Amino acid sequence: MSEIEQLKQQVEAQGGVVRQLKADKADKASIDEQVKILLSLKDKLRIASGEPASSGKSAKSFSLKTPKGTKDYTAKEMSVRSQIFSTITSVFEKHGAVTIDTPVFELKEILTGKYGEDSKLIYDLKDQGGEECSLRYDLTVPFARHVAMNGISNIKRFQIAKVYRRDQPAMTKGRMREFYQCDYDIAGQYDAMIPDAECVRVAVEVLTSLDVGSFVIKLNHRKILDAIFEVSGVPDDKIRTISSAVDKLDKLPWADVKKEMTEEKGLDEAVADKIGEYVRLSGREELLDKLRALPELMASTKAQEGVADMELFFKYAKIYNILDYVSFDMSLARGLDYYTGIIYEAVLTEENVRPTEAQPTATGAKEVKEGGEIDESQVRVGSIAAGGRYDELVGMFSAARRGGKAKGKNSNVPCVGISFGVERIYSVVMSRMQAETIKANKTQVYVISLRDGLIEERLKIATELWDAGIPAEFMYKVKPRLQSQYNTCDQEVIPWAVLIGSDEVASGNVKIKNMAAKVEGEEGGVTIKRSDMIAELKSRLDL
Amino acid sequence: MSEIEQLKQQVEAQGGVVRQLKADKADKASIDEQVKILLSLKDKLRIASGEPASSGKSAKSFSLKTPKGTKDYTAKEMSVRSQIFSTITSVFEKHGAVTIDTPVFELKEILTGKYGEDSKLIYDLKDQGGEECSLRYDLTVPFARHVAMNGISNIKRFQIAKVYRRDQPAMTKGRMREFYQCDYDIAGQYDAMIPDAECVRVAVEVLTSLDVGSFVIKLNHRKILDAIFEVSGVPDDKIRTISSAVDKLDKLPWADVKKEMTEEKGLDEAVADKIGEYVRLSGREELLDKLRALPELMASTKAQEGVADMELFFKYAKIYNILDYVSFDMSLARGLDYYTGIIYEAVLTEENVRPTEAQPTATGAKEVKEGGEIDESQVRVGSIAAGGRYDELVGMFSAARRGGKAKGKNSNVPCVGISFGVERIYSVVMSRMQAETIKANKTQVYVISLRDGLIEERLKIATELWDAGIPAEFMYKVKPRLQSQYNTCDQEVIPWAVLIGSDEVASGNVKIKNMAAKVEGEEGGVTIKRSDMIAELKSRLDL
Repeated sequence: MSEIEQLKQQVEAQGGVVRQLKADKADKASIDEQVKILLSLKDKLRIASGEPASSGKSAKSFSLKTPKGTKDYTAKEMSVRSQIFSTITSVFEKHGAVTIDTPVFELKEILTGKYGEDSKLIYDLKDQGGEECSLRYDLTVPFARHVAMNGISNIKRFQIAKVYRRDQPAMTKGRMREFYQCDYDIAGQYDAMIPDAECVRVAVEVLTSLDVGSFVIKLNHRKILDAIFEVSGVPDDKIRTISSAVDKLDKLPWADVKKEMTEEKGLDEAVADKIGEYVRLSGREELLDKLRALPELMASTKAQEGVADMELFFKYAKIYNILDYVSFDMSLARGLDYYTGIIYEAVLTEENVRPTEAQPTATGAKEVKEGGEIDESQVRVGSIAAGGRYDELVGMFSAARRGGKAKGKNSNVPCVGISFGVERIYSVVMSRMQAETIKANKTQVYVISLRDGLIEERLKIATELWDAGIPAEFMYKVKPRLQSQYNTCDQEVIPWAVLIGSDEVASGNVKIKNMAAKVEGEEGGVTIKRSDMIAELKSRLDL
Repeated sequence: MSEIEQLKQQVEAQGGVVRQLKADKADKASIDEQVKILLSLKDKLRIASGEPASSGKSAKSFSLKTPKGTKDYTAKEMSVRSQIFSTITSVFEKHGAVTIDTPVFELKEILTGKYGEDSKLIYDLKDQGGEECSLRYDLTVPFARHVAMNGISNIKRFQIAKVYRRDQPAMTKGRMREFYQCDYDIAGQYDAMIPDAECVRVAVEVLTSLDVGSFVIKLNHRKILDAIFEVSGVPDDKIRTISSAVDKLDKLPWADVKKEMTEEKGLDEAVADKIGEYVRLSGREELLDKLRALPELMASTKAQEGVADMELFFKYAKIYNILDYVSFDMSLARGLDYYTGIIYEAVLTEENVRPTEAQPTATGAKEVKEGGEIDESQVRVGSIAAGGRYDELVGMFSAARRGGKAKGKNSNVPCVGISFGVERIYSVVMSRMQAETIKANKTQVYVISLRDGLIEERLKIATELWDAGIPAEFMYKVKPRLQSQYNTCDQEVIPWAVLIGSDEVASGNVKIKNMAAKVEGEEGGVTIKRSDMIAELKSRLDL
């Protein structure tokens, strides 16, 4: 088939998609998205047919932008982000974690079958000959691949890196197609709940030291949840899909979730009601007593194992002084398939969320606001960290490895970890800052010529400052205007200036001036000996 | 056409490619590469036809590896890399530079037409609907795009980030498909050569503080080089391709370069010989006098401008104390098209390169070693930083922007910058280190149970240490063996231990022991009051 014929078919098919969406009265954004694809296909067809594209512009010039769902970060934004990363890193390192680095893309087959329905959001690289590759979707699967591939039996690692999802972006709410994840994981055969409790302790340390405001860490256990589904009568093959429905209780009321279970997923109403009773339970340690008092549930071995785990968890969490931050909540399910034990999710509490946001009810479900619509991107801003235990993921890779080479000494490397939503944390922190006060550079001293330019003298002084380790700049002009130099100090928030004119040069002096705060009696700066400049600045700069 | 038919055609075409390579006696790596593609196409065809793939393995299990030309970095490797990045960052920040972040992929059209022949090495993303994107090839083009897009008139920025090239990897020599670049650029309308000289000063500061060994920074000026081609009689349309040939003088003898110019590129032998005379010139400041004494060359306006620039450069470089590090070398050409002024390249000098490496001759060209073969990947390890002035690149984007919206206030933002080959710097630094001595974690204290497990006591002590900001770990076992705990301290290079047994707990004491160096009279550790633990550790740890 020729390229033109192929394009014709594609235009026709895409036209059908757009017509269908319009017929279905789909939301405007979805229709616009598909129309855009249609128009671009039509342009390609025109170009392939030798006709000019629809608008002269799109054929000749090009759009000066970053790809959809991505953005550039300015120096001020990066300064705030670096501080956040550095705070998080220092907590991770305080707990002995090391960092590793993995490639931004993986062999496609490594990611296949790990993300369920979300696999459609994976970015693939074009086949340009050689291997099929995809951009990483998270840091957990590459970590498990790394552990299995290198036969590692235990490691406590963190990784702060970008991941990629072809999701519908909501840029203002921090939902991007390229975004940072920030993961802390403990892999190894250890005694029950010791590393698990430490992950939650790490979450508390990170979130309190970042000063994001008040938060609560919801806890649950996959085995307890599975037992609930089992004793409620959910068929085995429906457990994961019903679990996904339960996970929506933080943004939908029970009635809607029940509807999804029964109408969409074909669950008996009686079974759904039974689940409803269980998943509304929440509390702290005392919830363990409540669960133990439910004979039907406790008849399940899974429930017994889960409750025993949580008992240990609370014992360790008490020593770690983190009980005030946790809530044991039967409605927490977490979407990903690979969890096998404790699961947790840190959410900002009410005073922290914007007033437009849907409010949680007593059951933990968020009511739908007047108007009947729920904006997921807003509701979800509350979640800022999540994770849990995943004991089988490394084994999935090790099994493949044994298939290849018969090593397999680490066929089973249990893992537990937590991932911080740094983009959301960044939004919260950034929203509290005033742009003018953010100093993006580290410059401490600006070398100013009062008159006559004096470029060589300014270069000499800058050289001395750099040699002494003092961050310094000057204006890259032979004869800069005095006012421009002062303005730069203001704009760049540079606290100190060294000022020279021909008089100062002749007499072997310099003036030192505090540009940020006026120092009593030093409004015009103080004149000191040139040879004392470094010592004087060092004492004033508090370096 | 059906998928099967398409695959059949692809298999046939690929078969032809392989046969041709074999007929041409191509090198084994190239043939293997193409055979691999052929086999994978055949597998796809078998699967599409419903047959099992060639090996049961490839259909079911999968290769547990990272994509070709990429690798994972271990904790120890990352620790060395982080130190390098942090040293480089602090030099950049000392000069007032700020950092920005751009997406890992750009719209394909942004990269189009910027890299000449190397464009074939660009990684494209698969078309999954929406925009056509490519992984960034360097950090310079995204930087220019950012400056133009945001109408920035001046910025001094650095960026340390990964870039992607589908090149033939030479992993052991640090040539990867995914690798870090580390760029420092100054954009803005400034007076001649002031920012240019600072870029070279920054290179000297970075390379001396990283302790890579002795190096020289070769300098040249595109305008002088263009004048040389002009007065030698190179036709205008051959200037760039002849310039590329000259750039090979650091790895090929003049005879080979001349052959390329005359036989491959059709240049007159007399013209080539004339070029040969010019490009063998090298020196420092005094070379300016030599050039000025060449009337034919100095008749060119370009040569006059270039020489005037270099005169200013040497004036500023002298003040910056960097004259000892530079060499003014007419054979330096640099491959990229976009340079418009000074160009420079830092290379490690002989004592730094491995003895197997080809040695430079008096003309700066490297002789071919006995055997007649030259291994580019080895020779090129010498280059560890490079850059220059590129005044037109931002304008290319701004023009596109004006085409879209009529703003264009920053149609011309001249730039100068330098890019450090951190992968090579990393190889050099790493080759001098001993793996055992690299401490990847930051853990200062290991909490050890002498007997009886004492898990709760160990958790309590760890909590106190963390609360006091002391990096601490313990073994995640309820009853760990003493020897295992000691072994961990050794392996993880943890310098201090807090030891407890039931006796210590009962008497409210702990033992403190230096695990790294024996302290006179403290071989078994010293017993101190539990309440003095933090203060005692802080004084010993020098935190």
